[in-house]
Amino acid sequence: MGRWEPDARGRLRAAAIELFSERGFDQTTVADIAERAGVTERTFFRHFADKREVLFEGSQVLQATVIEAIASAEPGTPPIETVAAAMQAGAGLLQGNRDYSRLRATAIAANPSLHERELLKLGRLAAAAAEALRDRGVAEPAASLAAQTGVTLFSVGFEKWLTDGAVDDFALHIRESLAELKALTGDA
Amino acid sequence: MGRWEPDARGRLRAAAIELFSERGFDQTTVADIAERAGVTERTFFRHFADKREVLFEGSQVLQATVIEAIASAEPGTPPIETVAAAMQAGAGLLQGNRDYSRLRATAIAANPSLHERELLKLGRLAAAAAEALRDRGVAEPAASLAAQTGVTLFSVGFEKWLTDGAVDDFALHIRESLAELKALTGDA
Repeated sequence: MGRWEPDARGRLRAAAIELFSERGFDQTTVADIAERAGVTERTFFRHFADKREVLFEGSQVLQATVIEAIASAEPGTPPIETVAAAMQAGAGLLQGNRDYSRLRATAIAANPSLHERELLKLGRLAAAAAEALRDRGVAEPAASLAAQTGVTLFSVGFEKWLTDGAVDDFALHIRESLAELKALTGDA
Repeated sequence: MGRWEPDARGRLRAAAIELFSERGFDQTTVADIAERAGVTERTFFRHFADKREVLFEGSQVLQATVIEAIASAEPGTPPIETVAAAMQAGAGLLQGNRDYSRLRATAIAANPSLHERELLKLGRLAAAAAEALRDRGVAEPAASLAAQTGVTLFSVGFEKWLTDGAVDDFALHIRESLAELKALTGDA
Protein backbone atom coordinates (compact mmCIF):
# COMPACT_ATOMS: atom_id res chain seq x y z
CA MET A 1 0.00 0.00 0.00
CA GLY A 2 1.35 3.48 -0.86
CA ARG A 3 2.00 6.03 1.86
CA TRP A 4 -0.87 8.20 0.68
CA GLU A 5 -3.45 5.46 0.98
CA PRO A 6 -3.87 4.64 4.65
CA ASP A 7 -6.30 1.69 4.87
CA ALA A 8 -7.29 2.00 1.22
CA ARG A 9 -8.51 -1.60 1.40
CA GLY A 10 -10.86 -0.90 4.30
CA ARG A 11 -12.20 2.23 2.64
CA LEU A 12 -12.75 0.39 -0.63
CA ARG A 13 -14.65 -2.35 1.21
CA ALA A 14 -16.86 0.18 3.00
CA ALA A 15 -17.46 2.17 -0.18
CA ALA A 16 -18.37 -0.95 -2.13
CA ILE A 17 -20.90 -2.23 0.39
CA GLU A 18 -22.49 1.23 0.67
CA LEU A 19 -22.86 1.48 -3.10
CA PHE A 20 -24.17 -2.09 -3.47
CA SER A 21 -26.82 -1.22 -0.88
CA GLU A 22 -27.74 2.09 -2.48
CA ARG A 23 -27.73 1.09 -6.17
CA GLY A 24 -27.48 -2.67 -6.31
CA PHE A 25 -24.45 -4.76 -7.20
CA ASP A 26 -24.95 -4.74 -10.97
CA GLN A 27 -25.43 -0.97 -11.07
CA THR A 28 -22.16 -0.29 -9.24
CA THR A 29 -18.90 -0.01 -11.17
CA VAL A 30 -15.33 -0.27 -9.93
CA ALA A 31 -14.95 3.39 -10.92
CA ASP A 32 -17.86 4.28 -8.60
CA ILE A 33 -16.27 2.37 -5.74
CA ALA A 34 -12.85 3.91 -6.23
CA GLU A 35 -14.34 7.40 -6.41
CA ARG A 36 -16.35 6.92 -3.23
CA ALA A 37 -13.26 5.60 -1.44
CA GLY A 38 -11.17 8.51 -2.72
CA VAL A 39 -8.64 6.34 -4.56
CA THR A 40 -7.91 5.51 -8.19
CA GLU A 41 -9.26 2.49 -10.04
CA ARG A 42 -5.71 1.29 -10.24
CA THR A 43 -5.57 1.22 -6.44
CA PHE A 44 -8.80 -0.78 -6.41
CA PHE A 45 -7.23 -3.40 -8.66
CA ARG A 46 -4.15 -3.57 -6.46
CA HIS A 47 -6.43 -4.85 -3.69
CA PHE A 48 -9.20 -6.78 -5.46
CA ALA A 49 -9.47 -8.74 -8.71
CA ASP A 50 -13.00 -7.40 -9.31
CA LYS A 51 -15.97 -5.93 -7.44
CA ARG A 52 -17.31 -9.38 -6.56
CA GLU A 53 -14.06 -10.18 -4.81
CA VAL A 54 -14.78 -7.40 -2.29
CA LEU A 55 -17.68 -9.48 -0.98
CA PHE A 56 -15.86 -12.80 -0.89
CA GLU A 57 -12.35 -11.86 0.26
CA GLY A 58 -13.07 -13.36 3.69
CA SER A 59 -13.96 -16.86 2.44
CA GLN A 60 -10.41 -18.15 2.34
CA VAL A 61 -9.58 -16.89 5.81
CA LEU A 62 -12.84 -18.33 7.15
CA GLN A 63 -12.06 -21.72 5.67
CA ALA A 64 -8.48 -21.67 6.96
CA THR A 65 -9.70 -20.74 10.45
CA VAL A 66 -12.27 -23.54 10.51
CA ILE A 67 -9.79 -26.16 9.25
CA GLU A 68 -7.16 -25.06 11.74
CA ALA A 69 -9.67 -25.27 14.60
CA ILE A 70 -10.70 -28.78 13.57
CA ALA A 71 -7.09 -29.91 13.27
CA SER A 72 -6.17 -28.56 16.69
CA ALA A 73 -9.22 -29.78 18.61
CA GLU A 74 -8.59 -31.83 21.73
CA PRO A 75 -8.22 -35.53 20.80
CA GLY A 76 -11.39 -37.45 21.52
CA THR A 77 -13.71 -34.48 21.06
CA PRO A 78 -16.92 -35.74 19.37
CA PRO A 79 -17.04 -34.72 15.67
CA ILE A 80 -20.14 -32.55 16.03
CA GLU A 81 -18.57 -30.63 18.94
CA THR A 82 -15.33 -30.27 17.00
CA VAL A 83 -17.15 -28.79 14.03
CA ALA A 84 -19.42 -26.53 16.10
CA ALA A 85 -16.41 -25.12 17.96
CA ALA A 86 -14.61 -24.60 14.63
CA MET A 87 -17.60 -22.69 13.24
CA GLN A 88 -17.61 -20.58 16.40
CA ALA A 89 -13.94 -19.81 15.76
CA GLY A 90 -14.92 -18.80 12.21
CA ALA A 91 -17.72 -16.64 13.60
CA GLY A 92 -15.11 -14.75 15.59
CA LEU A 93 -13.78 -13.32 12.32
CA LEU A 94 -17.08 -11.55 11.69
CA GLN A 95 -17.76 -10.52 15.28
CA GLY A 96 -17.69 -6.72 15.55
CA ASN A 97 -18.83 -6.34 11.95
CA ARG A 98 -22.54 -7.05 12.24
CA ASP A 99 -23.62 -3.97 10.29
CA TYR A 100 -21.23 -4.81 7.46
CA SER A 101 -22.36 -8.45 7.52
CA ARG A 102 -25.99 -7.38 7.31
CA LEU A 103 -25.36 -5.15 4.29
CA ARG A 104 -23.32 -7.89 2.65
CA ALA A 105 -26.09 -10.45 3.22
CA THR A 106 -28.66 -8.07 1.73
CA ALA A 107 -26.51 -7.47 -1.37
CA ILE A 108 -26.00 -11.21 -1.86
CA ALA A 109 -29.66 -12.10 -1.36
CA ALA A 110 -30.63 -9.53 -4.00
CA ASN A 111 -28.40 -11.02 -6.71
CA PRO A 112 -28.74 -14.63 -7.93
CA SER A 113 -25.17 -14.94 -9.18
CA LEU A 114 -23.78 -13.68 -5.86
CA HIS A 115 -26.12 -16.03 -4.02
CA GLU A 116 -24.84 -18.89 -6.16
CA ARG A 117 -21.27 -17.99 -5.32
CA GLU A 118 -22.03 -17.78 -1.61
CA LEU A 119 -23.56 -21.27 -1.68
CA LEU A 120 -20.51 -22.55 -3.54
CA LYS A 121 -18.22 -21.10 -0.87
CA LEU A 122 -20.29 -22.73 1.88
CA GLY A 123 -20.26 -26.02 -0.04
CA ARG A 124 -16.48 -25.83 -0.26
CA LEU A 125 -16.27 -25.02 3.43
CA ALA A 126 -18.29 -28.17 4.20
CA ALA A 127 -16.07 -30.29 1.93
CA ALA A 128 -12.91 -28.90 3.53
CA ALA A 129 -14.28 -29.46 7.04
CA ALA A 130 -15.20 -33.06 6.16
CA GLU A 131 -11.67 -33.64 4.91
CA ALA A 132 -10.21 -32.16 8.10
CA LEU A 133 -12.39 -34.52 10.14
CA ARG A 134 -11.30 -37.52 8.06
CA ASP A 135 -7.70 -36.48 8.71
CA ARG A 136 -8.50 -36.86 12.42
CA GLY A 137 -9.77 -40.39 11.81
CA VAL A 138 -13.52 -39.66 11.59
CA ALA A 139 -15.04 -42.16 9.14
CA GLU A 140 -17.63 -41.51 6.46
CA PRO A 141 -20.51 -40.78 6.50
CA ALA A 142 -19.95 -39.27 9.96
CA ALA A 143 -17.36 -36.80 8.64
CA SER A 144 -19.66 -35.43 5.92
CA LEU A 145 -22.71 -35.42 8.17
CA ALA A 146 -20.88 -33.51 10.89
CA ALA A 147 -19.25 -31.09 8.42
CA GLN A 148 -22.47 -30.26 6.58
CA THR A 149 -24.25 -29.91 9.90
CA GLY A 150 -21.52 -27.49 10.93
CA VAL A 151 -22.25 -25.32 7.89
CA THR A 152 -25.96 -25.49 8.73
CA LEU A 153 -25.17 -24.26 12.26
CA PHE A 154 -23.02 -21.49 10.78
CA SER A 155 -25.69 -20.28 8.35
CA VAL A 156 -28.62 -20.59 10.75
CA GLY A 157 -26.56 -18.97 13.50
CA PHE A 158 -25.57 -16.20 11.09
CA GLU A 159 -29.23 -15.48 10.31
CA LYS A 160 -30.08 -15.44 14.03
CA TRP A 161 -27.16 -13.12 14.69
CA LEU A 162 -28.25 -10.66 11.99
CA THR A 163 -31.90 -10.62 13.01
CA ASP A 164 -31.53 -10.72 16.78
CA GLY A 165 -31.67 -7.11 17.91
CA ALA A 166 -30.44 -7.92 21.41
CA VAL A 167 -27.65 -10.49 21.36
CA ASP A 168 -24.71 -9.40 19.18
CA ASP A 169 -22.74 -12.64 19.64
CA PHE A 170 -22.45 -14.74 16.49
CA ALA A 171 -20.67 -17.64 18.24
CA LEU A 172 -23.37 -17.82 20.89
CA HIS A 173 -26.03 -18.10 18.18
CA ILE A 174 -24.12 -21.05 16.69
CA ARG A 175 -23.97 -22.70 20.10
CA GLU A 176 -27.71 -22.15 20.60
CA SER A 177 -28.43 -23.55 17.13
CA LEU A 178 -26.56 -26.71 18.07
CA ALA A 179 -28.65 -27.03 21.23
CA GLU A 180 -31.81 -26.58 19.15
CA LEU A 181 -30.63 -29.16 16.61
CA LYS A 182 -29.94 -31.64 19.40
CA ALA A 183 -33.48 -31.10 20.66
CA LEU A 184 -34.82 -31.63 17.10
CA THR A 185 -32.91 -34.85 16.54
CA GLY A 186 -33.26 -36.21 20.05
CA ASP A 187 -35.88 -38.83 20.78
CA ALA A 188 -38.76 -36.75 22.09
CA MET B 1 -43.78 -35.06 -29.39
CA GLY B 2 -43.91 -36.04 -33.07
CA ARG B 3 -44.98 -39.55 -34.05
CA TRP B 4 -41.49 -40.36 -35.36
CA GLU B 5 -39.82 -39.54 -32.09
CA PRO B 6 -40.85 -42.13 -29.54
CA ASP B 7 -39.24 -41.10 -26.26
CA ALA B 8 -37.00 -38.54 -27.91
CA ARG B 9 -36.59 -36.90 -24.52
CA GLY B 10 -35.33 -40.09 -22.91
CA ARG B 11 -32.93 -40.74 -25.75
CA LEU B 12 -31.64 -37.17 -25.63
CA ARG B 13 -31.04 -37.51 -21.90
CA ALA B 14 -29.16 -40.79 -22.31
CA ALA B 15 -27.13 -39.44 -25.25
CA ALA B 16 -26.20 -36.30 -23.32
CA ILE B 17 -24.99 -38.12 -20.22
CA GLU B 18 -22.97 -40.55 -22.33
CA LEU B 19 -21.29 -37.71 -24.19
CA PHE B 20 -20.65 -35.68 -21.03
CA SER B 21 -18.93 -38.77 -19.59
CA GLU B 22 -16.89 -39.48 -22.70
CA ARG B 23 -15.82 -35.95 -23.65
CA GLY B 24 -16.71 -33.70 -20.76
CA PHE B 25 -19.58 -31.24 -20.54
CA ASP B 26 -17.80 -28.29 -22.17
CA GLN B 27 -16.62 -30.40 -25.10
CA THR B 28 -20.13 -31.63 -25.92
CA THR B 29 -22.41 -29.60 -28.20
CA VAL B 30 -26.17 -29.77 -28.63
CA ALA B 31 -25.49 -30.94 -32.20
CA ASP B 32 -23.47 -33.87 -30.81
CA ILE B 33 -26.27 -34.82 -28.43
CA ALA B 34 -28.95 -34.63 -31.11
CA GLU B 35 -26.85 -36.69 -33.50
CA ARG B 36 -26.19 -39.40 -30.90
CA ALA B 37 -29.90 -39.53 -30.06
CA GLY B 38 -30.85 -39.69 -33.72
CA VAL B 39 -32.93 -36.52 -33.72
CA THR B 40 -32.50 -32.98 -35.03
CA GLU B 41 -31.17 -30.07 -33.00
CA ARG B 42 -34.62 -28.57 -33.34
CA THR B 43 -36.06 -31.57 -31.53
CA PHE B 44 -33.48 -31.09 -28.77
CA PHE B 45 -34.65 -27.52 -28.28
CA ARG B 46 -38.29 -28.62 -28.15
CA HIS B 47 -37.36 -30.58 -25.02
CA PHE B 48 -34.57 -28.61 -23.35
CA ALA B 49 -33.56 -24.95 -23.23
CA ASP B 50 -29.85 -25.86 -23.37
CA LYS B 51 -27.52 -28.76 -22.63
CA ARG B 52 -27.22 -27.82 -18.98
CA GLU B 53 -30.98 -28.16 -18.63
CA VAL B 54 -30.67 -31.88 -19.41
CA LEU B 55 -28.84 -32.35 -16.11
CA PHE B 56 -31.19 -30.21 -14.03
CA GLU B 57 -34.62 -31.00 -15.44
CA GLY B 58 -35.43 -33.08 -12.36
CA SER B 59 -34.84 -30.30 -9.82
CA GLN B 60 -38.33 -28.81 -10.07
CA VAL B 61 -40.06 -32.17 -9.71
CA LEU B 62 -37.82 -33.07 -6.79
CA GLN B 63 -38.65 -29.83 -5.03
CA ALA B 64 -42.38 -30.22 -5.70
CA THR B 65 -42.31 -33.79 -4.36
CA VAL B 66 -40.49 -32.76 -1.19
CA ILE B 67 -42.83 -29.81 -0.54
CA GLU B 68 -45.90 -31.93 -1.14
CA ALA B 69 -44.63 -34.61 1.25
CA ILE B 70 -43.99 -32.01 3.96
CA ALA B 71 -47.41 -30.44 3.47
CA SER B 72 -49.21 -33.79 3.70
CA ALA B 73 -47.29 -35.24 6.67
CA GLU B 74 -49.34 -36.48 9.60
CA PRO B 75 -50.05 -33.61 12.00
CA GLY B 76 -47.76 -33.74 15.02
CA THR B 77 -44.90 -35.46 13.18
CA PRO B 78 -41.62 -34.00 14.51
CA PRO B 79 -40.03 -31.60 11.96
CA ILE B 80 -36.90 -33.69 11.46
CA GLU B 81 -38.97 -36.81 10.74
CA THR B 82 -41.21 -34.83 8.40
CA VAL B 83 -38.23 -33.61 6.43
CA ALA B 84 -36.43 -36.97 6.38
CA ALA B 85 -39.58 -38.70 5.07
CA ALA B 86 -39.98 -35.95 2.44
CA MET B 87 -36.39 -36.45 1.28
CA GLN B 88 -37.06 -40.20 1.08
CA ALA B 89 -40.07 -39.41 -1.12
CA GLY B 90 -37.76 -37.31 -3.30
CA ALA B 91 -35.25 -40.16 -3.41
CA GLY B 92 -37.98 -42.34 -4.89
CA LEU B 93 -37.80 -40.23 -8.06
CA LEU B 94 -34.20 -41.34 -8.64
CA GLN B 95 -34.63 -44.94 -7.52
CA GLY B 96 -34.06 -47.26 -10.49
CA ASN B 97 -31.68 -44.77 -12.11
CA ARG B 98 -28.52 -45.33 -10.13
CA ASP B 99 -26.26 -45.67 -13.16
CA TYR B 100 -27.62 -42.46 -14.66
CA SER B 101 -27.31 -40.71 -11.29
CA ARG B 102 -23.70 -41.82 -11.00
CA LEU B 103 -22.80 -40.49 -14.46
CA ARG B 104 -24.63 -37.26 -13.72
CA ALA B 105 -22.77 -36.83 -10.42
CA THR B 106 -19.44 -37.43 -12.16
CA ALA B 107 -20.24 -34.86 -14.86
CA ILE B 108 -21.23 -32.28 -12.25
CA ALA B 109 -18.22 -32.90 -10.02
CA ALA B 110 -15.93 -32.37 -13.02
CA ASN B 111 -17.31 -28.94 -13.88
CA PRO B 112 -17.24 -26.00 -11.42
CA SER B 113 -20.15 -24.13 -13.00
CA LEU B 114 -22.34 -27.25 -12.92
CA HIS B 115 -21.28 -27.87 -9.34
CA GLU B 116 -22.24 -24.30 -8.51
CA ARG B 117 -25.65 -24.79 -10.07
CA GLU B 118 -26.21 -28.07 -8.21
CA LEU B 119 -25.44 -26.35 -4.90
CA LEU B 120 -27.83 -23.55 -5.81
CA LYS B 121 -30.61 -26.08 -6.50
CA LEU B 122 -29.96 -27.78 -3.17
CA GLY B 123 -29.94 -24.39 -1.45
CA ARG B 124 -33.31 -23.59 -3.00
CA LEU B 125 -34.63 -26.99 -1.96
CA ALA B 126 -33.64 -26.23 1.64
CA ALA B 127 -35.28 -22.80 1.50
CA ALA B 128 -38.49 -24.26 0.05
CA ALA B 129 -38.55 -27.05 2.64
CA ALA B 130 -38.09 -24.50 5.45
CA GLU B 131 -41.01 -22.50 4.08
CA ALA B 132 -43.18 -25.61 3.91
CA LEU B 133 -42.33 -26.37 7.55
CA ARG B 134 -43.16 -22.81 8.61
CA ASP B 135 -46.50 -23.21 6.83
CA ARG B 136 -47.12 -26.14 9.19
CA GLY B 137 -46.42 -23.93 12.20
CA VAL B 138 -42.78 -24.88 12.79
CA ALA B 139 -41.01 -21.79 14.16
CA GLU B 140 -37.57 -20.49 13.24
CA PRO B 141 -34.80 -21.49 13.69
CA ALA B 142 -36.23 -25.02 13.93
CA ALA B 143 -37.67 -24.84 10.40
CA SER B 144 -34.36 -23.84 8.78
CA LEU B 145 -32.34 -26.24 10.93
CA ALA B 146 -34.60 -29.17 10.03
CA ALA B 147 -34.79 -28.22 6.34
CA GLN B 148 -31.03 -27.79 5.91
CA THR B 149 -30.48 -31.00 7.83
CA GLY B 150 -32.90 -32.69 5.42
CA VAL B 151 -30.77 -31.56 2.47
CA THR B 152 -27.67 -32.85 4.29
CA LEU B 153 -29.38 -36.24 4.71
CA PHE B 154 -30.33 -36.18 1.02
CA SER B 155 -26.81 -35.41 -0.19
CA VAL B 156 -24.99 -37.73 2.23
CA GLY B 157 -27.54 -40.47 1.52
CA PHE B 158 -27.09 -39.86 -2.21
CA GLU B 159 -23.32 -40.33 -1.90
CA LYS B 160 -23.81 -43.51 0.14
CA TRP B 161 -26.28 -44.79 -2.45
CA LEU B 162 -23.88 -44.19 -5.34
CA THR B 163 -20.88 -45.72 -3.61
CA ASP B 164 -22.55 -48.65 -1.86
CA GLY B 165 -22.11 -51.60 -4.19
CA ALA B 166 -24.61 -53.73 -2.30
CA VAL B 167 -27.65 -51.74 -1.21
CA ASP B 168 -29.37 -50.02 -4.15
CA ASP B 169 -31.97 -48.22 -2.01
CA PHE B 170 -31.53 -44.44 -1.89
CA ALA B 171 -34.34 -43.90 0.64
CA LEU B 172 -32.80 -46.46 3.00
CA HIS B 173 -29.47 -44.61 2.86
CA ILE B 174 -31.28 -41.41 3.85
CA ARG B 175 -32.91 -43.21 6.77
CA GLU B 176 -29.55 -44.63 7.87
CA SER B 177 -27.94 -41.19 7.59
CA LEU B 178 -30.60 -39.83 9.94
CA ALA B 179 -29.83 -42.60 12.43
CA GLU B 180 -26.14 -41.77 12.17
CA LEU B 181 -26.81 -38.05 12.64
CA LYS B 182 -28.89 -38.79 15.72
CA ALA B 183 -25.98 -40.78 17.11
CA LEU B 184 -23.62 -37.89 16.31
CA THR B 185 -25.78 -35.26 17.99
CA GLY B 186 -26.94 -37.42 20.90
CA ASP B 187 -25.30 -37.04 24.28
CA ALA B 188 -22.69 -39.77 24.25
